[in-house]
Amino acid sequence: MNFLKNFLLLCLLSVAFCQQHSNTDPHILPRPLIIELPENLEPRCDSSIEDTRLRCTGWRVAVEANNLSPWKTIPEECIDYVKDYMLGRSYEIDLQTVSNEAARFARSVDLKGDGMDVWIFDIDETLLSNLPYYAEHGYGLEIFDNVQFDKWVLEGVAPTIEPSLKLYNEVLGLGFKIFLLTGRREDKRNITTSNLIEAGFRNWDRLILRANEDHGKTAVAFKSDKRKEIMEEGFRILGNSGDQWSDLIGSAVSVRSFKLSNPMYFIS
Amino acid sequence: MNFLKNFLLLCLLSVAFCQQHSNTDPHILPRPLIIELPENLEPRCDSSIEDTRLRCTGWRVAVEANNLSPWKTIPEECIDYVKDYMLGRSYEIDLQTVSNEAARFARSVDLKGDGMDVWIFDIDETLLSNLPYYAEHGYGLEIFDNVQFDKWVLEGVAPTIEPSLKLYNEVLGLGFKIFLLTGRREDKRNITTSNLIEAGFRNWDRLILRANEDHGKTAVAFKSDKRKEIMEEGFRILGNSGDQWSDLIGSAVSVRSFKLSNPMYFIS
Repeated sequence: MNFLKNFLLLCLLSVAFCQQHSNTDPHILPRPLIIELPENLEPRCDSSIEDTRLRCTGWRVAVEANNLSPWKTIPEECIDYVKDYMLGRSYEIDLQTVSNEAARFARSVDLKGDGMDVWIFDIDETLLSNLPYYAEHGYGLEIFDNVQFDKWVLEGVAPTIEPSLKLYNEVLGLGFKIFLLTGRREDKRNITTSNLIEAGFRNWDRLILRANEDHGKTAVAFKSDKRKEIMEEGFRILGNSGDQWSDLIGSAVSVRSFKLSNPMYFIS
Repeated sequence: MNFLKNFLLLCLLSVAFCQQHSNTDPHILPRPLIIELPENLEPRCDSSIEDTRLRCTGWRVAVEANNLSPWKTIPEECIDYVKDYMLGRSYEIDLQTVSNEAARFARSVDLKGDGMDVWIFDIDETLLSNLPYYAEHGYGLEIFDNVQFDKWVLEGVAPTIEPSLKLYNEVLGLGFKIFLLTGRREDKRNITTSNLIEAGFRNWDRLILRANEDHGKTAVAFKSDKRKEIMEEGFRILGNSGDQWSDLIGSAVSVRSFKLSNPMYFIS
Protein backbone atom coordinates (compact mmCIF):
# COMPACT_ATOMS: atom_id res chain seq x y z
CA MET A 1 0.00 0.00 0.00
CA ASN A 2 2.87 2.25 0.93
CA PHE A 3 4.51 1.28 -2.33
CA LEU A 4 1.40 2.15 -4.35
CA LYS A 5 1.12 5.57 -2.69
CA ASN A 6 4.75 6.35 -3.47
CA PHE A 7 4.30 5.08 -7.00
CA LEU A 8 1.32 7.37 -7.69
CA LEU A 9 3.09 10.34 -6.13
CA LEU A 10 6.18 9.82 -8.23
CA CYS A 11 4.22 9.25 -11.40
CA LEU A 12 2.66 12.66 -10.86
CA LEU A 13 6.10 14.12 -10.19
CA SER A 14 7.51 12.54 -13.32
CA VAL A 15 4.68 13.92 -15.46
CA ALA A 16 5.22 17.35 -13.87
CA PHE A 17 8.92 17.06 -14.62
CA CYS A 18 8.24 16.23 -18.28
CA GLN A 19 5.79 19.15 -18.59
CA GLN A 20 8.08 21.60 -16.93
CA HIS A 21 10.96 20.51 -19.13
CA SER A 22 8.85 21.32 -22.17
CA ASN A 23 7.44 24.69 -21.21
CA THR A 24 9.49 26.87 -18.91
CA ASP A 25 11.90 28.64 -21.23
CA PRO A 26 10.44 29.77 -24.56
CA HIS A 27 13.83 29.34 -26.16
CA ILE A 28 14.12 25.68 -25.27
CA LEU A 29 12.79 22.97 -27.56
CA PRO A 30 10.22 21.88 -28.54
CA ARG A 31 7.15 24.16 -28.30
CA PRO A 32 8.78 27.42 -29.35
CA LEU A 33 9.99 25.83 -32.57
CA ILE A 34 6.42 25.68 -33.81
CA ILE A 35 5.45 29.12 -32.66
CA GLU A 36 8.54 30.98 -33.73
CA LEU A 37 8.94 29.57 -37.21
CA PRO A 38 6.63 31.98 -39.01
CA GLU A 39 8.49 34.90 -37.48
CA ASN A 40 11.89 33.50 -38.41
CA LEU A 41 10.85 32.68 -41.94
CA GLU A 42 8.68 35.67 -42.78
CA PRO A 43 9.52 35.78 -46.49
CA ARG A 44 8.00 32.34 -47.03
CA CYS A 45 4.98 32.70 -44.81
CA ASP A 46 3.86 36.31 -45.16
CA SER A 47 2.32 36.69 -48.59
CA SER A 48 2.69 40.47 -48.80
CA ILE A 49 6.43 40.22 -48.10
CA GLU A 50 6.70 37.45 -50.66
CA ASP A 51 4.81 39.63 -53.17
CA THR A 52 7.25 42.47 -52.58
CA ARG A 53 10.17 40.12 -53.07
CA LEU A 54 8.75 38.89 -56.39
CA ARG A 55 8.03 42.43 -57.62
CA CYS A 56 11.50 43.62 -56.62
CA THR A 57 13.10 40.62 -58.34
CA GLY A 58 11.08 41.47 -61.46
CA TRP A 59 12.27 45.05 -61.22
CA ARG A 60 15.91 43.99 -60.75
CA VAL A 61 15.79 41.62 -63.73
CA ALA A 62 14.19 44.41 -65.81
CA VAL A 63 17.17 46.61 -64.85
CA GLU A 64 19.63 43.90 -65.91
CA ALA A 65 17.77 43.31 -69.20
CA ASN A 66 17.87 47.06 -69.97
CA ASN A 67 14.09 47.21 -70.06
CA LEU A 68 13.68 50.32 -67.93
CA SER A 69 13.72 54.02 -68.70
CA PRO A 70 16.43 55.96 -66.88
CA TRP A 71 15.70 55.89 -63.13
CA LYS A 72 17.01 58.08 -60.32
CA THR A 73 16.34 55.95 -57.23
CA ILE A 74 15.38 52.36 -56.49
CA PRO A 75 11.67 51.68 -55.79
CA GLU A 76 10.96 52.51 -52.16
CA GLU A 77 9.43 49.10 -51.48
CA CYS A 78 12.66 47.43 -52.64
CA ILE A 79 15.11 48.94 -50.14
CA ASP A 80 15.25 45.80 -47.97
CA TYR A 81 15.39 43.62 -51.08
CA VAL A 82 18.31 45.54 -52.59
CA LYS A 83 20.15 45.62 -49.27
CA ASP A 84 19.71 41.87 -48.77
CA TYR A 85 20.74 41.23 -52.37
CA MET A 86 23.91 43.31 -52.13
CA LEU A 87 24.98 42.05 -48.70
CA GLY A 88 23.93 38.43 -49.15
CA ARG A 89 25.39 35.81 -51.44
CA SER A 90 23.20 36.54 -54.49
CA TYR A 91 25.23 39.54 -55.68
CA GLU A 92 28.52 37.64 -55.32
CA ILE A 93 27.15 34.60 -57.16
CA ASP A 94 25.73 36.76 -59.96
CA LEU A 95 29.11 38.48 -60.39
CA GLN A 96 30.86 35.10 -60.45
CA THR A 97 28.45 33.78 -63.09
CA VAL A 98 29.18 36.68 -65.43
CA SER A 99 32.91 36.65 -64.69
CA ASN A 100 33.08 32.90 -65.45
CA GLU A 101 31.21 33.39 -68.71
CA ALA A 102 33.53 36.23 -69.71
CA ALA A 103 36.61 34.13 -68.89
CA ARG A 104 35.21 31.25 -70.96
CA PHE A 105 34.82 33.61 -73.90
CA ALA A 106 38.30 35.12 -73.37
CA ARG A 107 39.88 31.64 -73.44
CA SER A 108 37.95 30.74 -76.61
CA VAL A 109 39.37 33.65 -78.60
CA ASP A 110 42.34 33.17 -80.89
CA LEU A 111 44.49 36.20 -80.13
CA LYS A 112 46.50 37.56 -83.04
CA GLY A 113 49.58 38.07 -80.86
CA ASP A 114 50.21 41.54 -82.27
CA GLY A 115 49.24 43.33 -79.05
CA MET A 116 46.10 44.79 -80.59
CA ASP A 117 43.51 42.61 -78.83
CA VAL A 118 41.81 44.65 -76.11
CA TRP A 119 39.54 44.00 -73.15
CA ILE A 120 37.81 47.06 -71.70
CA PHE A 121 36.82 47.32 -68.07
CA ASP A 122 34.70 50.00 -66.47
CA ILE A 123 35.82 50.86 -62.91
CA ASP A 124 33.00 51.68 -60.45
CA GLU A 125 30.91 48.62 -59.55
CA THR A 126 33.00 46.70 -62.09
CA LEU A 127 36.53 46.58 -60.65
CA LEU A 128 36.03 48.65 -57.49
CA SER A 129 33.02 48.49 -55.20
CA ASN A 130 31.34 51.60 -53.80
CA LEU A 131 29.09 49.45 -51.64
CA PRO A 132 30.50 51.01 -48.41
CA TYR A 133 29.32 54.40 -49.71
CA TYR A 134 25.91 53.19 -50.87
CA ALA A 135 25.38 51.30 -47.60
CA GLU A 136 25.53 54.71 -45.92
CA HIS A 137 23.15 56.22 -48.49
CA GLY A 138 20.19 53.88 -48.62
CA TYR A 139 21.48 51.40 -51.25
CA GLY A 140 20.22 53.64 -54.04
CA LEU A 141 17.12 54.99 -52.28
CA GLU A 142 18.71 58.45 -51.88
CA ILE A 143 19.12 60.68 -54.92
CA PHE A 144 22.75 60.62 -56.08
CA ASP A 145 24.82 63.31 -54.36
CA ASN A 146 27.82 64.18 -56.46
CA VAL A 147 29.64 66.12 -53.71
CA GLN A 148 29.30 63.36 -51.12
CA PHE A 149 30.24 60.67 -53.62
CA ASP A 150 33.35 62.59 -54.72
CA LYS A 151 34.50 62.77 -51.09
CA TRP A 152 34.18 58.98 -50.88
CA VAL A 153 36.08 58.47 -54.15
CA LEU A 154 38.90 60.74 -52.95
CA GLU A 155 39.39 58.53 -49.91
CA GLY A 156 40.67 55.93 -52.39
CA VAL A 157 39.55 52.99 -50.31
CA ALA A 158 36.94 51.35 -52.56
CA PRO A 159 37.34 47.57 -52.16
CA THR A 160 38.04 45.02 -54.87
CA ILE A 161 35.25 43.25 -56.74
CA GLU A 162 36.87 39.85 -56.44
CA PRO A 163 35.26 37.99 -59.39
CA SER A 164 36.39 40.88 -61.62
CA LEU A 165 39.96 40.72 -60.30
CA LYS A 166 39.99 37.02 -61.17
CA LEU A 167 38.76 37.78 -64.69
CA TYR A 168 41.17 40.71 -65.01
CA ASN A 169 44.17 38.55 -64.18
CA GLU A 170 43.02 35.75 -66.47
CA VAL A 171 42.48 38.14 -69.39
CA LEU A 172 45.87 39.74 -68.74
CA GLY A 173 47.53 36.32 -68.64
CA LEU A 174 45.95 35.39 -71.97
CA GLY A 175 47.69 38.35 -73.61
CA PHE A 176 44.90 40.90 -73.92
CA LYS A 177 45.72 44.57 -73.50
CA ILE A 178 43.57 46.03 -70.76
CA PHE A 179 42.01 49.46 -71.20
CA LEU A 180 40.13 51.01 -68.30
CA LEU A 181 37.32 53.30 -69.45
CA THR A 182 35.58 55.21 -66.67
CA GLY A 183 33.15 58.08 -66.22
CA ARG A 184 35.41 59.42 -63.45
CA ARG A 185 37.00 62.77 -64.30
CA GLU A 186 40.67 63.47 -64.98
CA ASP A 187 41.10 65.12 -61.55
CA LYS A 188 40.58 61.65 -60.03
CA ARG A 189 43.41 60.03 -62.01
CA ASN A 190 45.89 59.73 -59.15
CA ILE A 191 43.49 58.52 -56.49
CA THR A 192 41.92 56.10 -58.98
CA THR A 193 45.32 54.68 -59.87
CA SER A 194 46.37 54.20 -56.26
CA ASN A 195 42.98 52.73 -55.31
CA LEU A 196 43.17 50.25 -58.20
CA ILE A 197 46.70 49.19 -57.28
CA GLU A 198 45.77 48.88 -53.61
CA ALA A 199 42.82 46.69 -54.70
CA GLY A 200 45.14 44.35 -56.64
CA PHE A 201 44.77 45.57 -60.23
CA ARG A 202 48.05 45.93 -62.11
CA ASN A 203 49.47 46.29 -65.61
CA TRP A 204 46.64 47.95 -67.44
CA ASP A 205 47.63 49.63 -70.67
CA ARG A 206 45.44 52.71 -70.52
CA LEU A 207 43.30 54.49 -67.97
CA ILE A 208 40.82 56.66 -69.85
CA LEU A 209 38.92 59.23 -67.78
CA ARG A 210 36.56 62.06 -68.75
CA ALA A 211 38.54 65.07 -69.94
CA ASN A 212 37.07 68.57 -69.81
CA GLU A 213 35.73 68.32 -73.35
CA ASP A 214 33.79 65.15 -72.42
CA HIS A 215 31.81 66.67 -69.56
CA GLY A 216 28.65 67.45 -71.46
CA LYS A 217 28.36 63.97 -72.99
CA THR A 218 26.16 61.13 -71.77
CA ALA A 219 28.07 58.04 -70.66
CA VAL A 220 26.86 56.21 -73.80
CA ALA A 221 28.23 58.97 -76.06
CA PHE A 222 31.50 59.39 -74.13
CA LYS A 223 32.26 55.67 -74.03
CA SER A 224 31.18 55.07 -77.64
CA ASP A 225 33.47 57.92 -78.77
CA LYS A 226 36.40 56.50 -76.83
CA ARG A 227 35.84 52.98 -78.19
CA LYS A 228 35.67 54.42 -81.70
CA GLU A 229 39.03 56.19 -81.18
CA ILE A 230 40.53 52.95 -79.87
CA MET A 231 39.28 51.01 -82.88
CA GLU A 232 40.56 53.70 -85.25
CA GLU A 233 44.03 53.11 -83.80
CA GLY A 234 43.68 49.54 -85.04
CA PHE A 235 42.83 47.82 -81.78
CA ARG A 236 40.27 45.03 -81.73
CA ILE A 237 37.90 45.34 -78.76
CA LEU A 238 36.94 41.75 -78.01
CA GLY A 239 35.53 42.01 -74.52
CA ASN A 240 33.90 44.76 -72.49
CA SER A 241 32.85 44.46 -68.86
CA GLY A 242 30.64 47.03 -67.16
CA ASP A 243 27.84 47.32 -64.61
CA GLN A 244 25.87 49.85 -66.69
CA TRP A 245 24.31 49.32 -70.09
CA SER A 246 25.82 52.70 -70.97
CA ASP A 247 29.25 51.04 -70.63
CA LEU A 248 28.34 48.56 -73.34
CA ILE A 249 25.87 49.94 -75.91
CA GLY A 250 25.95 52.79 -78.45
CA SER A 251 28.45 52.56 -81.29
CA ALA A 252 31.80 50.79 -81.76
CA VAL A 253 30.62 48.03 -79.47
CA SER A 254 32.79 45.14 -78.34
CA VAL A 255 32.58 41.67 -79.87
CA ARG A 256 31.14 40.46 -76.56
CA SER A 257 29.81 42.62 -73.75
CA PHE A 258 29.33 41.53 -70.16
CA LYS A 259 26.80 43.28 -67.95
CA LEU A 260 27.63 43.03 -64.26
CA SER A 261 24.77 43.24 -61.81
CA ASN A 262 23.97 46.63 -60.25
CA PRO A 263 20.53 47.31 -58.76
CA MET A 264 21.66 50.47 -56.90
CA TYR A 265 21.95 53.13 -59.57
CA PHE A 266 21.52 53.89 -63.26
CA ILE A 267 23.76 55.98 -65.53
CA SER A 268 22.52 57.04 -68.98
CA MET B 1 14.19 2.53 3.32
CA ASN B 2 11.37 0.93 1.40
CA PHE B 3 10.27 4.41 0.36
CA LEU B 4 13.76 5.33 -0.81
CA LYS B 5 14.02 2.14 -2.91
CA ASN B 6 10.68 2.88 -4.56
CA PHE B 7 11.64 6.49 -5.09
CA LEU B 8 14.83 5.55 -6.91
CA LEU B 9 13.06 2.92 -8.98
CA LEU B 10 10.36 5.35 -10.04
CA CYS B 11 12.80 8.12 -10.80
CA LEU B 12 14.44 5.74 -13.23
CA LEU B 13 11.02 4.82 -14.64
CA SER B 14 10.06 8.47 -15.03
CA VAL B 15 13.27 9.27 -16.87
CA ALA B 16 12.68 6.25 -19.09
CA PHE B 17 9.12 7.47 -19.69
CA CYS B 18 10.35 10.92 -20.73
CA GLN B 19 12.91 9.38 -23.03
CA GLN B 20 10.43 7.00 -24.58
CA HIS B 21 7.89 9.77 -25.05
CA SER B 22 10.45 11.70 -27.06
CA ASN B 23 11.74 8.91 -29.20
CA THR B 24 9.25 6.19 -30.09
CA ASP B 25 7.30 7.60 -33.01
CA PRO B 26 9.27 9.87 -35.30
CA HIS B 27 6.04 11.63 -36.27
CA ILE B 28 5.17 12.70 -32.73
CA LEU B 29 6.39 15.97 -31.20
CA PRO B 30 8.84 17.18 -30.16
CA ARG B 31 12.05 15.69 -31.51
CA PRO B 32 10.88 15.05 -35.07
CA LEU B 33 10.06 18.73 -35.53
CA ILE B 34 13.73 19.47 -35.45
CA ILE B 35 14.59 16.61 -37.76
CA GLU B 36 11.81 17.05 -40.26
CA LEU B 37 11.93 20.77 -40.73
CA PRO B 38 14.70 20.74 -43.33
CA GLU B 39 12.57 18.41 -45.42
CA ASN B 40 9.47 20.61 -45.19
CA LEU B 41 11.30 23.81 -45.91
CA GLU B 42 14.04 22.57 -48.15
CA PRO B 43 14.70 25.75 -50.10
CA ARG B 44 15.51 27.79 -47.01
CA CYS B 45 17.11 25.24 -44.73
CA ASP B 46 19.17 23.01 -46.97
CA SER B 47 22.19 25.00 -47.97
CA SER B 48 22.95 22.94 -51.09
CA ILE B 49 19.42 23.50 -52.42
CA GLU B 50 19.68 27.19 -51.56
CA ASP B 51 23.04 27.29 -53.40
CA THR B 52 21.42 25.74 -56.47
CA ARG B 53 18.61 28.29 -56.33
CA LEU B 54 21.12 31.16 -56.17
CA ARG B 55 23.23 29.75 -59.01
CA CYS B 56 20.16 29.17 -61.18
CA THR B 57 18.90 32.69 -60.49
CA GLY B 58 22.34 33.98 -61.50
CA TRP B 59 22.15 31.92 -64.66
CA ARG B 60 18.61 33.16 -65.46
CA VAL B 61 19.58 36.81 -64.93
CA ALA B 62 22.64 36.25 -67.16
CA VAL B 63 20.26 34.95 -69.85
CA GLU B 64 18.05 38.03 -69.50
CA ALA B 65 21.08 40.38 -69.59
CA ASN B 66 22.33 38.69 -72.78
CA ASN B 67 25.55 37.69 -71.06
CA LEU B 68 25.65 34.08 -72.26
CA SER B 69 26.93 32.40 -75.38
CA PRO B 70 24.29 30.56 -77.38
CA TRP B 71 23.02 27.61 -75.32
CA LYS B 72 21.11 24.51 -76.35
CA THR B 73 19.59 23.34 -73.07
CA ILE B 74 19.11 24.72 -69.59
CA PRO B 75 21.67 23.66 -66.94
CA GLU B 76 20.68 20.24 -65.61
CA GLU B 77 20.75 21.43 -62.00
CA CYS B 78 18.20 24.14 -62.86
CA ILE B 79 15.32 21.98 -64.09
CA ASP B 80 13.32 22.33 -60.84
CA TYR B 81 14.18 26.00 -60.65
CA VAL B 82 13.00 26.72 -64.20
CA LYS B 83 9.85 24.64 -63.70
CA ASP B 84 9.01 26.46 -60.46
CA TYR B 85 9.76 29.80 -62.08
CA MET B 86 7.55 29.17 -65.10
CA LEU B 87 4.65 27.64 -63.17
CA GLY B 88 4.81 29.92 -60.14
CA ARG B 89 4.04 33.62 -59.91
CA SER B 90 7.56 34.89 -60.73
CA TYR B 91 7.23 34.48 -64.50
CA GLU B 92 3.83 36.22 -64.55
CA ILE B 93 5.10 39.09 -62.38
CA ASP B 94 8.22 39.52 -64.54
CA LEU B 95 6.07 39.66 -67.70
CA GLN B 96 3.78 42.21 -66.07
CA THR B 97 6.74 44.36 -65.04
CA VAL B 98 8.04 44.54 -68.60
CA SER B 99 4.57 44.98 -70.12
CA ASN B 100 3.84 47.87 -67.73
CA GLU B 101 7.14 49.52 -68.59
CA ALA B 102 6.43 49.14 -72.32
CA ALA B 103 2.93 50.61 -71.91
CA ARG B 104 4.37 53.55 -69.97
CA PHE B 105 6.75 54.21 -72.85
CA ALA B 106 4.00 53.80 -75.47
CA ARG B 107 1.83 56.38 -73.68
CA SER B 108 4.77 58.79 -73.44
CA VAL B 109 5.35 58.87 -77.20
CA ASP B 110 3.89 61.66 -79.33
CA LEU B 111 2.50 59.80 -82.31
CA LYS B 112 2.60 61.64 -85.61
CA GLY B 113 -0.89 60.51 -86.55
CA ASP B 114 0.20 59.60 -90.09
CA GLY B 115 -0.16 55.85 -89.53
CA MET B 116 3.59 55.29 -89.74
CA ASP B 117 4.32 54.63 -86.06
CA VAL B 118 4.89 50.92 -85.55
CA TRP B 119 5.14 48.52 -82.62
CA ILE B 120 6.64 45.12 -83.42
CA PHE B 121 5.73 41.98 -81.52
CA ASP B 122 7.39 38.60 -81.76
CA ILE B 123 4.92 35.71 -81.39
CA ASP B 124 6.26 32.63 -79.54
CA GLU B 125 6.75 33.29 -75.80
CA THR B 126 5.78 36.89 -76.53
CA LEU B 127 2.10 36.80 -77.55
CA LEU B 128 1.51 33.04 -77.46
CA SER B 129 2.82 30.66 -74.84
CA ASN B 130 4.33 27.28 -75.71
CA LEU B 131 4.57 26.38 -72.05
CA PRO B 132 2.21 23.37 -72.48
CA TYR B 133 4.70 21.98 -75.01
CA TYR B 134 7.78 22.70 -72.91
CA ALA B 135 6.13 21.28 -69.79
CA GLU B 136 6.05 17.97 -71.70
CA HIS B 137 9.69 18.38 -72.78
CA GLY B 138 11.61 19.14 -69.61
CA TYR B 139 11.20 22.93 -69.56
CA GLY B 140 14.19 23.33 -71.85
CA LEU B 141 16.25 20.40 -70.56
CA GLU B 142 15.62 18.41 -73.76
CA ILE B 143 17.37 19.42 -76.97
CA PHE B 144 14.90 21.27 -79.23
CA ASP B 145 13.04 18.85 -81.51
CA ASN B 146 11.81 20.67 -84.59
CA VAL B 147 9.44 17.92 -85.71
CA GLN B 148 7.74 17.56 -82.33
CA PHE B 149 7.49 21.31 -81.90
CA ASP B 150 5.94 21.77 -85.34
CA LYS B 151 3.25 19.23 -84.44
CA TRP B 152 2.42 21.31 -81.36
CA VAL B 153 2.34 24.56 -83.36
CA LEU B 154 -0.01 22.99 -85.93
CA GLU B 155 -2.50 22.20 -83.17
CA GLY B 156 -2.99 25.98 -82.95
CA VAL B 157 -3.86 25.92 -79.27
CA ALA B 158 -1.01 27.96 -77.75
CA PRO B 159 -2.50 30.05 -74.95
CA THR B 160 -2.38 33.82 -74.57
CA ILE B 161 0.37 35.59 -72.69
CA GLU B 162 -1.98 37.87 -70.82
CA PRO B 163 0.34 40.78 -69.93
CA SER B 164 1.24 40.99 -73.63
CA LEU B 165 -2.41 41.00 -74.70
CA LYS B 166 -2.96 43.93 -72.33
CA LEU B 167 0.00 45.79 -73.85
CA TYR B 168 -1.08 44.86 -77.38
CA ASN B 169 -4.54 46.33 -76.87
CA GLU B 170 -3.16 49.46 -75.23
CA VAL B 171 -0.66 50.05 -78.04
CA LEU B 172 -3.39 49.45 -80.63
CA GLY B 173 -5.69 51.90 -78.84
CA LEU B 174 -2.96 54.56 -78.83
CA GLY B 175 -2.84 54.42 -82.64
CA PHE B 176 0.29 52.37 -83.30
CA LYS B 177 0.33 50.03 -86.26
CA ILE B 178 1.14 46.53 -85.10
CA PHE B 179 3.53 44.35 -87.08
CA LEU B 180 4.05 40.75 -86.02
CA LEU B 181 7.53 39.49 -86.85
CA THR B 182 8.11 35.80 -86.20
CA GLY B 183 10.64 33.08 -86.96
CA ARG B 184 7.73 30.76 -87.85
CA ARG B 185 7.68 29.77 -91.51
CA GLU B 186 5.15 30.80 -94.16
CA ASP B 187 3.54 27.34 -94.09
CA LYS B 188 2.33 28.18 -90.55
CA ARG B 189 0.53 31.39 -91.62
CA ASN B 190 -3.02 30.04 -91.37
CA ILE B 191 -2.65 28.18 -88.11
CA THR B 192 -0.74 31.12 -86.60
CA THR B 193 -3.48 33.53 -87.63
CA SER B 194 -6.24 31.39 -86.18
CA ASN B 195 -4.29 30.70 -82.98
CA LEU B 196 -3.65 34.42 -82.49
CA ILE B 197 -7.32 35.30 -83.04
CA GLU B 198 -8.43 32.52 -80.74
CA ALA B 199 -6.02 33.91 -78.13
CA GLY B 200 -7.57 37.37 -78.37
CA PHE B 201 -5.17 39.22 -80.69
CA ARG B 202 -6.89 41.28 -83.42
CA ASN B 203 -6.24 44.03 -85.95
CA TRP B 204 -2.53 43.65 -86.59
CA ASP B 205 -1.35 45.30 -89.76
CA ARG B 206 1.18 42.73 -90.91
CA LEU B 207 2.14 39.21 -90.05
CA ILE B 208 5.70 38.63 -91.28
CA LEU B 209 6.90 35.03 -91.36
CA ARG B 210 10.07 33.42 -92.73
CA ALA B 211 9.80 32.97 -96.49
CA ASN B 212 11.84 30.36 -98.33
CA GLU B 213 14.65 32.83 -99.00
CA ASP B 214 14.99 33.57 -95.29
CA HIS B 215 15.60 29.99 -94.18
CA GLY B 216 19.37 30.13 -94.03
CA LYS B 217 19.47 33.31 -91.96
CA THR B 218 19.96 33.57 -88.24
CA ALA B 219 17.04 35.12 -86.38
CA VAL B 220 19.11 38.26 -85.78
CA ALA B 221 19.81 38.64 -89.53
CA PHE B 222 16.25 37.78 -90.61
CA LYS B 223 14.62 40.16 -88.16
CA SER B 224 17.14 42.96 -88.78
CA ASP B 225 16.53 42.67 -92.54
CA LYS B 226 12.77 42.83 -92.06
CA ARG B 227 13.00 45.85 -89.74
CA LYS B 228 15.25 47.54 -92.28
CA GLU B 229 12.69 46.96 -95.04
CA ILE B 230 9.95 48.33 -92.79
CA MET B 231 11.98 51.45 -92.05
CA GLU B 232 12.78 51.90 -95.73
CA GLU B 233 9.02 52.08 -96.38
CA GLY B 234 9.01 55.11 -94.08
CA PHE B 235 7.67 53.48 -90.93
CA ARG B 236 9.06 54.51 -87.53
CA ILE B 237 9.63 51.48 -85.29
CA LEU B 238 9.12 52.87 -81.82
CA GLY B 239 8.62 49.73 -79.76
CA ASN B 240 9.68 46.10 -80.11
CA SER B 241 8.68 43.29 -77.76
CA GLY B 242 10.34 39.88 -77.85
CA ASP B 243 11.47 37.08 -75.56
CA GLN B 244 14.78 36.58 -77.39
CA TRP B 245 17.63 39.05 -77.72
CA SER B 246 17.67 38.03 -81.39
CA ASP B 247 14.23 39.68 -81.69
CA LEU B 248 15.70 42.99 -80.57
CA ILE B 249 19.37 43.43 -81.53
CA GLY B 250 21.29 43.62 -84.82
CA SER B 251 20.57 46.53 -87.13
CA ALA B 252 17.57 48.82 -87.69
CA VAL B 253 16.70 48.48 -84.02
CA SER B 254 13.61 49.96 -82.44
CA VAL B 255 13.64 53.19 -80.39
CA ARG B 256 12.88 51.08 -77.32
CA SER B 257 13.15 47.30 -77.03
CA PHE B 258 11.48 45.15 -74.40
CA LYS B 259 12.95 41.78 -73.48
CA LEU B 260 10.37 39.38 -72.09
CA SER B 261 11.59 36.68 -69.75
CA ASN B 262 12.35 33.24 -71.19
CA PRO B 263 14.64 30.82 -69.35
CA MET B 264 13.61 27.79 -71.45
CA TYR B 265 15.37 28.24 -74.77
CA PHE B 266 17.75 30.42 -76.76
CA ILE B 267 17.55 31.43 -80.42
CA SER B 268 20.55 33.05 -82.12
